[in-house]
Amino acid sequence: MSLQRWKLTIEYQGTDYSGWQCQIEGIPSVQQSIEKAITDFCQQNCRLHVAGRTDAGVHASGQVAHFDLDYGEREITGFQLSKALNAHLRFQKISILNAQPVSQDFHARYHASHKLYTYRLLNRFAPPTYDHSLVWHVRNDLDLDAMKAGAQRLLGHHDFSTFRAIKCQAKSPMRTLDRLDIDIVPLSCGGREIRFLTEARSYLHHQVRNMVGTLVLVGQGKWTPDDVSCALKACDRTQGGPTAPPDGLYLSQVFYADQITKEIL
Amino acid sequence: MSLQRWKLTIEYQGTDYSGWQCQIEGIPSVQQSIEKAITDFCQQNCRLHVAGRTDAGVHASGQVAHFDLDYGEREITGFQLSKALNAHLRFQKISILNAQPVSQDFHARYHASHKLYTYRLLNRFAPPTYDHSLVWHVRNDLDLDAMKAGAQRLLGHHDFSTFRAIKCQAKSPMRTLDRLDIDIVPLSCGGREIRFLTEARSYLHHQVRNMVGTLVLVGQGKWTPDDVSCALKACDRTQGGPTAPPDGLYLSQVFYADQITKEIL
Repeated sequence: MSLQRWKLTIEYQGTDYSGWQCQIEGIPSVQQSIEKAITDFCQQNCRLHVAGRTDAGVHASGQVAHFDLDYGEREITGFQLSKALNAHLRFQKISILNAQPVSQDFHARYHASHKLYTYRLLNRFAPPTYDHSLVWHVRNDLDLDAMKAGAQRLLGHHDFSTFRAIKCQAKSPMRTLDRLDIDIVPLSCGGREIRFLTEARSYLHHQVRNMVGTLVLVGQGKWTPDDVSCALKACDRTQGGPTAPPDGLYLSQVFYADQITKEIL
Repeated sequence: MSLQRWKLTIEYQGTDYSGWQCQIEGIPSVQQSIEKAITDFCQQNCRLHVAGRTDAGVHASGQVAHFDLDYGEREITGFQLSKALNAHLRFQKISILNAQPVSQDFHARYHASHKLYTYRLLNRFAPPTYDHSLVWHVRNDLDLDAMKAGAQRLLGHHDFSTFRAIKCQAKSPMRTLDRLDIDIVPLSCGGREIRFLTEARSYLHHQVRNMVGTLVLVGQGKWTPDDVSCALKACDRTQGGPTAPPDGLYLSQVFYADQITKEIL
């Protein structure tokens, strides 16, 4: 056995990182930090390929990346690899949840069938304490029914140019939104957490944050659900709502067709 | 109107504090930090009386405290008071969830009818990232059914000396445990969070953390539920399990008889 491809499932708090890739000079990226841990452990340089690049401040509870490792004649299990990488990452807010050997034709990005993002919004007057940097804090009470109605308007196959960052590099603005649920988690001493759960094969840059920012306008009564439809049809970023902050966004899970990721060791 | 008693409902992350009261020289306590915010806002010294003192590293999502404020001829609402205090606490991990004017005979500690504590345990191999300092991380898989059976043995009126810190100052070791539920929150990419929810009128020092530490021995198969009963009957701290770390513990809610806390303004 020479070259082995590994699939890593990764959790991180994005707050102190320059995104998955290096976006800010002098601030380490999540990718750099994990690649360094691999190099420190295996004494070889490697390149991580990720399922979904996340921006600075965005978190992940189920990011996926793959890389190739030449471990010579020795054998290593996924358990040993994840344990070793976590030891090297112990001062980082990055944790390897799982390391799985996969076949050489597996690709973390190209083979992903869809991705689940969660957006956490703390809806109460008082500021967050232990959830600081982990939620978007919105003080005013929001109309949940109106927001849910607005969310319905975004489901399906559309030109999402209205919800696309100016710097987005995707070739096409067409995307298919399979899910945009809004759940409530009541808090014991007043207020509530609002969770947006969205699934799609892929997203445009800032699409989730722009959709959330727009739906909050609906929750505040500044927009109607019909305004969401009009904005979508305009195919114009200037007609959309503001971009929600990165703090509340989590790449929660990346899904693959079973046969591609099945364990081969 | 001269002197007004106020009931504060408070959230905090205990990680960087020396407990509710000052326990460690040079590290501020939660109490000091809030008293300073009140002084900075009102230009008068005051003394906070708390429902339940928490140790260093222990958090609260619903701590309650009261204090008296002489605001002269001016009037202030609970909304204005909590907003002002939160502004003064903006660099702290402390948040005033609610400020409510109460009658002069209300006492945060003596009138509390029962308290709900939550203990969060992250049960997976990989270390926590954004939950660092907010959960107890236990790597090995735990037997939930055995833990639930063990928890049942602790319900009711008992001498809890086995689960009492050596330095506990309570006059009697007798306490009545009304609830000790164990809930599971599955995590999307493997592992789970185990939540202990316990209610009682009052607790001995370290009682919740000592009960959780003991039940984890049961979950690991080192103890049986019968061993929990034997330990309880021994009325001897040396017969109990280890003290779980403070990181996972939250004072979630303090309950009062309605007539005592009803708003009077």
